[in-house]
Amino acid sequence: MSSVEQQLEEIEATIEQEVPSDVQITEVRYEGPELVVYTRDPKRFARDGDLVRQLASKLRKRITVRPDPAVLSKPEEARQQVLDVIPDDAGVTDLDFHVDTGEVVIEAEKPGMVIGRHGATLREITQETGWTPEVVRTPPIESSTVKNVRNFLKQEREERRDILERIGRQIHREEMSDDEWVRITTLGCCREVGRAAFILSTPETRVLIDCGDKPGAEDEVPYLQVPEALGSGASSLDAVVLTHAHLDHSALIPLLFKYGYDGPIYTTEPTRDLMGLLTLDYLDVAAKEGRTPPYDSEMVREAIKHTIPLEYGDVTDISPDIKLTLHNAGHILGSAVAHFHIGDGLYNVAFSGDIHYDDTRLFNGAVNDFPRVETLVMESTYGGRNDYQTDQKDSERKLKHTIKNTLDRGGKVLIPAFAVGRSQEIMLVLEEAMREGEIPEVPVHLDGMIWEATAIHTTYPEYLRDELRERIFHEDSNPFLSDQFNHIDGGEEERQDVADEGPSIIISTSGMLEGGPIMSWLEHLGTDPDSTLTFVGYQAQGTLGRRIQNGWDEIPIDNGAGRGRETLTLKMDTEVVDGFSGHADRQGLENFVRTMNPRPEKVLCVHGDESSTQEFSSALYHEFNMRTFAPKNLETFRFV
Amino acid sequence: MSSVEQQLEEIEATIEQEVPSDVQITEVRYEGPELVVYTRDPKRFARDGDLVRQLASKLRKRITVRPDPAVLSKPEEARQQVLDVIPDDAGVTDLDFHVDTGEVVIEAEKPGMVIGRHGATLREITQETGWTPEVVRTPPIESSTVKNVRNFLKQEREERRDILERIGRQIHREEMSDDEWVRITTLGCCREVGRAAFILSTPETRVLIDCGDKPGAEDEVPYLQVPEALGSGASSLDAVVLTHAHLDHSALIPLLFKYGYDGPIYTTEPTRDLMGLLTLDYLDVAAKEGRTPPYDSEMVREAIKHTIPLEYGDVTDISPDIKLTLHNAGHILGSAVAHFHIGDGLYNVAFSGDIHYDDTRLFNGAVNDFPRVETLVMESTYGGRNDYQTDQKDSERKLKHTIKNTLDRGGKVLIPAFAVGRSQEIMLVLEEAMREGEIPEVPVHLDGMIWEATAIHTTYPEYLRDELRERIFHEDSNPFLSDQFNHIDGGEEERQDVADEGPSIIISTSGMLEGGPIMSWLEHLGTDPDSTLTFVGYQAQGTLGRRIQNGWDEIPIDNGAGRGRETLTLKMDTEVVDGFSGHADRQGLENFVRTMNPRPEKVLCVHGDESSTQEFSSALYHEFNMRTFAPKNLETFRFV
Repeated sequence: MSSVEQQLEEIEATIEQEVPSDVQITEVRYEGPELVVYTRDPKRFARDGDLVRQLASKLRKRITVRPDPAVLSKPEEARQQVLDVIPDDAGVTDLDFHVDTGEVVIEAEKPGMVIGRHGATLREITQETGWTPEVVRTPPIESSTVKNVRNFLKQEREERRDILERIGRQIHREEMSDDEWVRITTLGCCREVGRAAFILSTPETRVLIDCGDKPGAEDEVPYLQVPEALGSGASSLDAVVLTHAHLDHSALIPLLFKYGYDGPIYTTEPTRDLMGLLTLDYLDVAAKEGRTPPYDSEMVREAIKHTIPLEYGDVTDISPDIKLTLHNAGHILGSAVAHFHIGDGLYNVAFSGDIHYDDTRLFNGAVNDFPRVETLVMESTYGGRNDYQTDQKDSERKLKHTIKNTLDRGGKVLIPAFAVGRSQEIMLVLEEAMREGEIPEVPVHLDGMIWEATAIHTTYPEYLRDELRERIFHEDSNPFLSDQFNHIDGGEEERQDVADEGPSIIISTSGMLEGGPIMSWLEHLGTDPDSTLTFVGYQAQGTLGRRIQNGWDEIPIDNGAGRGRETLTLKMDTEVVDGFSGHADRQGLENFVRTMNPRPEKVLCVHGDESSTQEFSSALYHEFNMRTFAPKNLETFRFV
Repeated sequence: MSSVEQQLEEIEATIEQEVPSDVQITEVRYEGPELVVYTRDPKRFARDGDLVRQLASKLRKRITVRPDPAVLSKPEEARQQVLDVIPDDAGVTDLDFHVDTGEVVIEAEKPGMVIGRHGATLREITQETGWTPEVVRTPPIESSTVKNVRNFLKQEREERRDILERIGRQIHREEMSDDEWVRITTLGCCREVGRAAFILSTPETRVLIDCGDKPGAEDEVPYLQVPEALGSGASSLDAVVLTHAHLDHSALIPLLFKYGYDGPIYTTEPTRDLMGLLTLDYLDVAAKEGRTPPYDSEMVREAIKHTIPLEYGDVTDISPDIKLTLHNAGHILGSAVAHFHIGDGLYNVAFSGDIHYDDTRLFNGAVNDFPRVETLVMESTYGGRNDYQTDQKDSERKLKHTIKNTLDRGGKVLIPAFAVGRSQEIMLVLEEAMREGEIPEVPVHLDGMIWEATAIHTTYPEYLRDELRERIFHEDSNPFLSDQFNHIDGGEEERQDVADEGPSIIISTSGMLEGGPIMSWLEHLGTDPDSTLTFVGYQAQGTLGRRIQNGWDEIPIDNGAGRGRETLTLKMDTEVVDGFSGHADRQGLENFVRTMNPRPEKVLCVHGDESSTQEFSSALYHEFNMRTFAPKNLETFRFV
């Protein structure tokens, strides 16, 4: 009998002691980090909410109780019973019964009403039917991404269950090593922005944190080929953790599955969906630009299938000696600070991922409060000595001023923006400004993946800033549904129409002018001196956006397949409004560390160009007397 | 056609252009780092010494010319011709003809006379016979190690040739990567003494430097199981370089072959033989102590078979982008500073190995003069702020004083010493002291492997200090052959006799009282207050030697198989004479760096306990304004 079998038998015995003697436990198994308990008396568990809490605290495990299939009512009978329990206002749009697990997935417009006060309605569903309800939100704006991901996971449910069981047994295996050490290896994004990838390793466990590409230098990828990365096979990784969905953190996650990785990806639910959206687009862009993508869409599906979504604050065993907790990072939807607790109180490492310290319109500021942290791996995008950004209030004023001027002179405002994050922030600014009459009410056209990304945002309001979430939840005044917003879904023809019409605002991808519909907009508007190209985000070294910011006005235009290239001379006005970054500025980064609780002993400054990381490292050292580093790629640091 | 085939064809064409048109080249192939040129006209090459030099400089390769087997005279004919050319005084003891390579191995008491002035006699041999001579020294003291190694290599000659050809093609493969980086990973001997092991890596090449165990903690071994070591298979290493034969650098070299390594070990010829001696003894000791040795003697033979001996100063290609040069380190016989030139002028790293900066009786001081060095990996055994040792002259005075006192009161002097190095140094001191009447002429008994190690020293006088070498070469006044020295080869009975007889001196292994015959001598002499236990070498943490130095007087004595243990209370006088270390003291280490040419930019201080490495690192930083580090094990530093 394997050690895991034995463990499970012991756990089953413990559970049988803890629950009332007439409650029958029929099976205990691992599914990913959770312990799943099958019982013939699911209603008893539903009645006594404390029972599961007691078990969880006794066993120090996350516990899910499921009905033994033998005691389940038939789906066709249960359907009506479930609908009877849920208030009509909840707006149930789908019910999906899974006989194998006894779960019923309820998609509803107002999940809160399905859950009920402290979960009362959920428990009632189980008491009435025996089925275990799982609730998801009906996207308020239809999102093909969310729909596709949900359908795909439904279809792969059985395989996924096998995967989760295998992963669960891996996580709960016995520790093998007597040795104690903790190391971080830098595989990318050191003294540069892009290709984020780190390995956190102990004698027992190897975790990859992020696996991105580098915008403007797509051939520069993380050093996955060195032995400490995948040299001994991708299967030697225990887990992959994804801090957020931007491609410089996520683009090569699917590649891992091509290399034979078969383990879990831990991230938030919105990041999973956004990763699907962005990596499929990444493949698309590569194909359009004639590059051979490093993997195909099948690998994206593998990545989604292997994702174990975590909520902020969930403490999750991801290996025998590492617990992971994700916390809000304030950067984009679902973005996370990843906190690792290693050993039994041995060491703690936090990876900031990309953060925004202050609250923005979209998100609460990054969490920097932890039980313990000895080492912080910290982004430094704006860590340079002069990287102070305008206060967002001032930036909004400047943006509105620019927009008003441009519209007043009959021009159009063209805003290149990342589909995910900056676009929605700007949308919120524009919606309010128009509502309050600060700028003229003109159409706001959203091109590229912005509409789809917005739909994903509205699917997960729990991840948005408190006030915004409340608006979406309770007041039915979802700002993203405002009439001004128009989704460009008519291609080149619609763009021509917009160009020919009167004043308007266009928000379009890509955010750094590296292809995408923005290139078409430049053709339409580039020679119009009345229109304004308005940058609201970071432009990486080597991108067209950065070159234009540096005064370049020769824009290469691709005439499309085989029709060669020509050059357009940019005559548009150009404005940079720099306070909208999803990143903390120098002040914000310092504040994150200053107010961090507890203060870390060591900080690795990464994700910034050479001067930013070095200046930030030096500043933290002098200000807080910590040991700080500006690592190079391919270095390994040992702690403990 | 592989790129190596093509390369060899091009080389052959170049050679044919360079040599006179009537000289026939029949084959060109790689054997290890050398290019071997087969010709039907070996005598022409022998006549014109410049021809090979010109080719070597043109091709930038080490070149060996061998006769095409078709033109060779028969061994039975050649034998007499060879003997006729060599002066009788050379003392030829063996001639061994190898038809496959056209080489004749000549073993002689005076190799210099076989070589002749500037190699004149060697060339004459080839001119007369067509055979290529290779000369080795007849050990002046019979050494079973040297004999066994030579016989083994003779017997494995064919397989070895295949191995060398394969290695040669590996070395001369085409470079695959456009990337440029240089890294060092610490796998052992950081903030500790023992288990030396480092990986030097580039995108193209991975080299393991040393692979030792840890005295007093045999279960602590280098971190070979982490992915950056052998995680992707031992075959992912291009080369292993061994700085010297002490077990804390060499013990686990044979283990690599058990793990599937099949590549070269670069080291000096005496280090190869000493490694054979010491690793076989290591297996023996493990077996005696009831530990399971990590490999068996077959793996030691594999290691010897895969060794490519280098002479000090030879610049050798060991991969497409790395050249290795070994230099005298002054520590023990054959010990080397390993200098790596990476890329075409890209970067240079020197590993000091263990060094002695000043001349000793046995060796010239360590070489610290290099064409270029950016990073130095530096031993720090005595790098602590107070680790100044007595000047060796004073130490010798103290040793002689101790000996005289002890002998005068009728006691015996028991000196624990490493078989290799310290023992021979002490032998030289004693030989001179007795010859000059400074101490009484008493027998000096050599127990353990000291006699055998001494025999190996006399086999390779080229590696000894100039003056000593001259004595052995020309004056026939080999101090090691002095009458005082007695090899204890009669086991326990002889020891009992020695113990019962009058005053004498005993030098015995192990040097740190971790087993070996010294334990038996402690039983014989430990309770005699007239005798003196005299330490002349470093006693590592955790060893019995260190405990005795710290005042411990309870010596556990193993009564042998199954007869239990008892405790002996030490009553012998104890003296520490600390100037004989094979290691530079703090002053010597600083001097090595101070006078180093050129001064390195960075120094990693390793091979010393935590305080020694940190204090030495800090001292070098303050004194020379270099970037210095005291790494931990399992860290990776990137240069370039």
